[in-house]
Amino acid sequence: MIAADDNCPPLALRTRWHAARTHTLALAAPLSAEDAMLQSMPDTSPAKWHLAHTTWFLEHFVLGADAQPFDPGFARIFNSYYQSIGPRHARPQRGLLSRPSLARVLAYRAHVDDAVDALLDRDALTETRCQLLELALQHEQQHQELLLTDIKHAFSLHPQQPAYRDDLVVSPREVGDCKWRAQVGGDISIGAAAWPGSGCFAFDHESPRHRVWIEPFALAHRAVTGGEFLAFVREGGYRTASLWQSEGWDWIQAQGITRPLYWSEDESSEFTLGGPRAIDVHAPVVHVSWFEAEAFARWAGARLPTEAEWEQAASTLPVAGNFAEQDALHPRCAQRDDNGLAQMFGDVWEWTASAYQPYPGFRALSGALGEYNGKFMSGQLILRGGSCASPVSHLRASYRNFFKPTDRWQFSGIRLARDA
Amino acid sequence: MIAADDNCPPLALRTRWHAARTHTLALAAPLSAEDAMLQSMPDTSPAKWHLAHTTWFLEHFVLGADAQPFDPGFARIFNSYYQSIGPRHARPQRGLLSRPSLARVLAYRAHVDDAVDALLDRDALTETRCQLLELALQHEQQHQELLLTDIKHAFSLHPQQPAYRDDLVVSPREVGDCKWRAQVGGDISIGAAAWPGSGCFAFDHESPRHRVWIEPFALAHRAVTGGEFLAFVREGGYRTASLWQSEGWDWIQAQGITRPLYWSEDESSEFTLGGPRAIDVHAPVVHVSWFEAEAFARWAGARLPTEAEWEQAASTLPVAGNFAEQDALHPRCAQRDDNGLAQMFGDVWEWTASAYQPYPGFRALSGALGEYNGKFMSGQLILRGGSCASPVSHLRASYRNFFKPTDRWQFSGIRLARDA
Amino acid sequence: MIAADDNCPPLALRTRWHAARTHTLALAAPLSAEDAMLQSMPDTSPAKWHLAHTTWFLEHFVLGADAQPFDPGFARIFNSYYQSIGPRHARPQRGLLSRPSLARVLAYRAHVDDAVDALLDRDALTETRCQLLELALQHEQQHQELLLTDIKHAFSLHPQQPAYRDDLVVSPREVGDCKWRAQVGGDISIGAAAWPGSGCFAFDHESPRHRVWIEPFALAHRAVTGGEFLAFVREGGYRTASLWQSEGWDWIQAQGITRPLYWSEDESSEFTLGGPRAIDVHAPVVHVSWFEAEAFARWAGARLPTEAEWEQAASTLPVAGNFAEQDALHPRCAQRDDNGLAQMFGDVWEWTASAYQPYPGFRALSGALGEYNGKFMSGQLILRGGSCASPVSHLRASYRNFFKPTDRWQFSGIRLARDA
Amino acid sequence: MIAADDNCPPLALRTRWHAARTHTLALAAPLSAEDAMLQSMPDTSPAKWHLAHTTWFLEHFVLGADAQPFDPGFARIFNSYYQSIGPRHARPQRGLLSRPSLARVLAYRAHVDDAVDALLDRDALTETRCQLLELALQHEQQHQELLLTDIKHAFSLHPQQPAYRDDLVVSPREVGDCKWRAQVGGDISIGAAAWPGSGCFAFDHESPRHRVWIEPFALAHRAVTGGEFLAFVREGGYRTASLWQSEGWDWIQAQGITRPLYWSEDESSEFTLGGPRAIDVHAPVVHVSWFEAEAFARWAGARLPTEAEWEQAASTLPVAGNFAEQDALHPRCAQRDDNGLAQMFGDVWEWTASAYQPYPGFRALSGALGEYNGKFMSGQLILRGGSCASPVSHLRASYRNFFKPTDRWQFSGIRLARDA
Repeated sequence: MIAADDNCPPLALRTRWHAARTHTLALAAPLSAEDAMLQSMPDTSPAKWHLAHTTWFLEHFVLGADAQPFDPGFARIFNSYYQSIGPRHARPQRGLLSRPSLARVLAYRAHVDDAVDALLDRDALTETRCQLLELALQHEQQHQELLLTDIKHAFSLHPQQPAYRDDLVVSPREVGDCKWRAQVGGDISIGAAAWPGSGCFAFDHESPRHRVWIEPFALAHRAVTGGEFLAFVREGGYRTASLWQSEGWDWIQAQGITRPLYWSEDESSEFTLGGPRAIDVHAPVVHVSWFEAEAFARWAGARLPTEAEWEQAASTLPVAGNFAEQDALHPRCAQRDDNGLAQMFGDVWEWTASAYQPYPGFRALSGALGEYNGKFMSGQLILRGGSCASPVSHLRASYRNFFKPTDRWQFSGIRLARDA
Repeated sequence: MIAADDNCPPLALRTRWHAARTHTLALAAPLSAEDAMLQSMPDTSPAKWHLAHTTWFLEHFVLGADAQPFDPGFARIFNSYYQSIGPRHARPQRGLLSRPSLARVLAYRAHVDDAVDALLDRDALTETRCQLLELALQHEQQHQELLLTDIKHAFSLHPQQPAYRDDLVVSPREVGDCKWRAQVGGDISIGAAAWPGSGCFAFDHESPRHRVWIEPFALAHRAVTGGEFLAFVREGGYRTASLWQSEGWDWIQAQGITRPLYWSEDESSEFTLGGPRAIDVHAPVVHVSWFEAEAFARWAGARLPTEAEWEQAASTLPVAGNFAEQDALHPRCAQRDDNGLAQMFGDVWEWTASAYQPYPGFRALSGALGEYNGKFMSGQLILRGGSCASPVSHLRASYRNFFKPTDRWQFSGIRLARDA
Repeated sequence: MIAADDNCPPLALRTRWHAARTHTLALAAPLSAEDAMLQSMPDTSPAKWHLAHTTWFLEHFVLGADAQPFDPGFARIFNSYYQSIGPRHARPQRGLLSRPSLARVLAYRAHVDDAVDALLDRDALTETRCQLLELALQHEQQHQELLLTDIKHAFSLHPQQPAYRDDLVVSPREVGDCKWRAQVGGDISIGAAAWPGSGCFAFDHESPRHRVWIEPFALAHRAVTGGEFLAFVREGGYRTASLWQSEGWDWIQAQGITRPLYWSEDESSEFTLGGPRAIDVHAPVVHVSWFEAEAFARWAGARLPTEAEWEQAASTLPVAGNFAEQDALHPRCAQRDDNGLAQMFGDVWEWTASAYQPYPGFRALSGALGEYNGKFMSGQLILRGGSCASPVSHLRASYRNFFKPTDRWQFSGIRLARDA
Repeated sequence: MIAADDNCPPLALRTRWHAARTHTLALAAPLSAEDAMLQSMPDTSPAKWHLAHTTWFLEHFVLGADAQPFDPGFARIFNSYYQSIGPRHARPQRGLLSRPSLARVLAYRAHVDDAVDALLDRDALTETRCQLLELALQHEQQHQELLLTDIKHAFSLHPQQPAYRDDLVVSPREVGDCKWRAQVGGDISIGAAAWPGSGCFAFDHESPRHRVWIEPFALAHRAVTGGEFLAFVREGGYRTASLWQSEGWDWIQAQGITRPLYWSEDESSEFTLGGPRAIDVHAPVVHVSWFEAEAFARWAGARLPTEAEWEQAASTLPVAGNFAEQDALHPRCAQRDDNGLAQMFGDVWEWTASAYQPYPGFRALSGALGEYNGKFMSGQLILRGGSCASPVSHLRASYRNFFKPTDRWQFSGIRLARDA
């Protein structure tokens, strides 16, 4: 019943779904029950909550509202923001959920996974249910990345800055100067064909595919490095009002921000999922806000790309790079690649100049799922390309990620653009 | 030395500038020295400050930094936000400036106007200085509208809700149902030619003129009325989460917002510059935020137009309507106009779906004037068309106004759009 | 009908009341209508509001609720905090009252004064009404001091730091070392006999007179000087946590407080009602909070006196010193007085160690006047003695003033005590 | 080496200390490692932190700064507020301490207890060290009560309101009307003899014993009940401004407070350490702030007692009642006791009218221990008598507890007083 498609990942949905569920458990494995409770700011969630919320999503949308829930009290505490489904536990208080225990949440996962498998064994999945399973899988993958960024934030605030793992892959390398790659403009099309309908999964806000006029432009062949950003810091970038958006300038003044999120005060080391490490001047700078990215670009005499420019340049590239699967969980130096664009996928999410807004003709999914993306279209900016914490199978050239201009706890970095 | 242009207002710059300066004084005339000090929130400024700040702009940029200033202390208190020029008095404390007195500020205006006239008499205006005078004139006009919106806000908070004027023109009329007007799409161009250079004034952020692809669409033939918005209120629009952006929903909950800014609690009257009046269900609803405009559009099964759509539809229309010159200072009912678009200019600024972002190839003015617009390009939305408080000569189809999605004290209203 | 009393000021009530009303006008005379509108923080009020509120108090309580009010809208805006009388204009928005104008407020004062005089001419004052007139007079005097402290605060925030007056009396002098004066302890009585009843005015919270046991102690013969406080600043007083109450330490950290309120950053000058002046190291330090006073005392190896100790020491002294009548409006150096206590009255209010709490057997006045003092008995500390801005006739040894431990805009200073 | 005293608990220090340490473990036993991490507001601490902090206190002050610490990193995270000892982990972030685990904290406890026992076995305790051990024991007992009040607060916010224990003793009973018991006044003495020195432990702020004059008064024979407080609620107590301190009124308005902390919205049930239960109208009302206690007293035509009055009345009574040892962990109905005072100790802490201030001649302990109490003497009010969560051996008539007037999460209740 699940159709393969030439353009879409050929792997069967059930296999992919199993793999995703298993991978989430692997990500949580280094965490104690106590670690899994940490919520260090209202924007983040405990690992235990990610484990349970993705399971609730599966239970509610795939098994369905009619099925007997594992625990009737879970809907209230593991629904994230679906107002139409019922009251929810306050987001900033997710860290207060000592009950259910991690053990019980893992039992919840196993129970729901078994129930979905039973459904699949009975060949009972309608096309709609397949689509919901696909959506649940994609949703699971989003929370895999959030689980990593959220625990990183929590551990960074611990006085002893513990490592999430001490066996992460590190492969230092040198990187050459940044080069400009000319890109053609014109009457192009961006966005994905609407799903469901096309066979290939894409979130609602990636559609419809639509025409855009862009002028010729140039893109940097790789992401901005820690060393390049260090020069910005040392040459007074954070003290020069004319480089900043007015709102960004007020924000860095009020918060006393003088460097990327996890950099040490002396700009020599940074906190990583492997614990504190010396800043690698050859690797991409990471954990900068849009305000910092935009100010850096102005300082560098460049600008950020629009999302249409970015997607046009990425559309012919393979989705390859440094993802969660590479098990570095930190950005790495770009490969030397003298003729093309490096690091478009993986390593760091790249802030664009584009506000998060609906594409022309955008239609949200119907019902509760219509709350998935459509209601966050104010005050956020688009990021593209995926990071070292993203699963590779989750990404594509049309993928739109979005965060507020002050958000820094994602693996967010910078690629420069300029007019041709 | 001031060249006329076929496409541009032929009236001589000097005459227009005189008229603008005189008009500002007329706007301030109903205010006592005490009224002219009122600052009711950090976003607004006292009328006295507007009178002085526009004069400081003229003195600093037209007479020039070399000229002997009227008072060396004024730069600090009447500079608005030009970081590159020097330290400034904190914005939220403009209401604490009892000194200089209104009388002295009026003397300051007369002094600087005389000095500019003396320059013009000596035929000393270079082309650059002419441009600066044009910019000062346009800047004066912007502050004319702010003077009105700011004093309206201050008076609305006075327990006795005094009228700014009691002789304003009121001309009630009935308005028919709203009709859709189909608009063609395609490969269009929007924006103004860069000024200076083209002869026609436009702000830097209106340029460069550039190509945009738009799909066919339809626009409502007039603005949304008070009666239509009242139906939204009464049918629970402010209590239905699914109509709102997530950020907007949180905002109306936190602030307890249940109706447009100046409506009375029983939804029967509204505060105007002529004092409290019964809500005119036939006249455009006004003083709504972008969040309210966007939620209303969703409730109505429509959407807000993009700024490209709006400009394309407006580009062939005359700049005619209910402006400050009509001396109503409040939106009026649309004329019956069965075949075209009414109220595109004047009455109310129309919120668009577009975030305020730079046009492709945007270049800010150089020097301190580069701070005019370019540094406000985060977190704001575009409004188009002008209002009942805008001077007619200040407007054009390419004019971009911008405010935060929660701002409501401008004369902001709604025009609906939909896909074709 | 107004009885004189051997122990009480013999001057007739009517004469004293005339003098007080006239003195308030004299205090407001240096202020323009614009100055009289300034409200620089929620705790302060505009001078115009003080002028009108004291008049409303007189109209409401002396002429009575039955009399025709001058303007029925005034009750709402000029009632301060009497919840039982009706709704009130929000305190932090008193600065938005451009209407009524200062001219109209002065007419209001004249009108109500005339009406009270007409009552007095008709010999119509009952004993109750006499008491209310006495209370209104005392209330007027309280607002005279607040008018001065409030305008001082507002002018201090003006970028040009204007002087309230430029003709204030300045009489510098040197002061010798501080000496300890031993005081006897034992079973003493403090507080005033209840008024009305005794003939001598006192506020309700000064009564009843009651017995207190105190141990022998010593008082400093004069107030702490600017020079002594400067030593505390320079020797790191504001950087030594062990000197501070925990709440006070958190407060100075959060607010970045490193010196008395009106001292310049370089600790060389201070803002006064006569404009900026060099700090007089011989004159009392002024505008310190209770937290600062208490920390200074600990640093000096001493403590603050309790209010019982202070009153016992002051009870035999004449009410003499540097008051508003001396027209310095700033603390002056103590007279050399080798055997007694100097500056117990006038110059600076002296923070005591005592929380503001009811005396044993305290009874608030009945009706709305019961809200005068009784409801402020939480979170405030007692000050004693009066200041350079207090009218001399307003003070006595039993007088209790009270402010929050972070308040600094009153003329508050320090006198040290220690155990015997 | 540890001297017994006729007036002091004769049980040997070592036995008492063992019992206290063991009791803390028993209190933590019902909590999972996840429960033990909960911090629901900045004022509270996780149970794990209480377990570790009391151990750090023992290690630092009894074993001494010279001894090899169990873990050198613990000083930073388990020091509460001793500024003089070094930097500390921010209080509101104690809930982020997933590391060390509960298991490791329990190992820390065992290790330090063993080390102290080894010291005692070697007979190595000097008199000073004995005193420090006594202080550590008293400190341990304080945290036992906080552990209970803090976990109660955290569980109350959990959507499922879990019970801390489901086997708590409940013994309902009816209670008669409240009666007044006359108390004599005069020249009395309160406070404890200074420790160390007297043999009997008391905290520094209970000393010196000193003379106070009090007038004759009357005390209610028992605490205010839930039923009596319900009448206050139902008769509009929370809506009547004249009953409240001004600051308290503003606070209940701003926070929307309409009932005691753990009461359900319909005033039928309350959250207890045994989970939600019907409100017992015969048992003492509990979890009210000082503002609520003071307003209730005014509504009842009474007042709160001063701490001198309370201590005088309690000084001849045995320390008997409903304490932690009774294992109810909730206040119970008073025994019928027609001639005396019931519930003076145990059940609920009783708010007094007295601000927390130093007694005349107060001397803080020297060194870091001087930070124990002395620096909290601003903005807090005294409570007396102990609660159902206090260990009986921790209490005495001179015991002073103190909290902010808005604090409600302690077992705080009300006893009325009135003038004779």
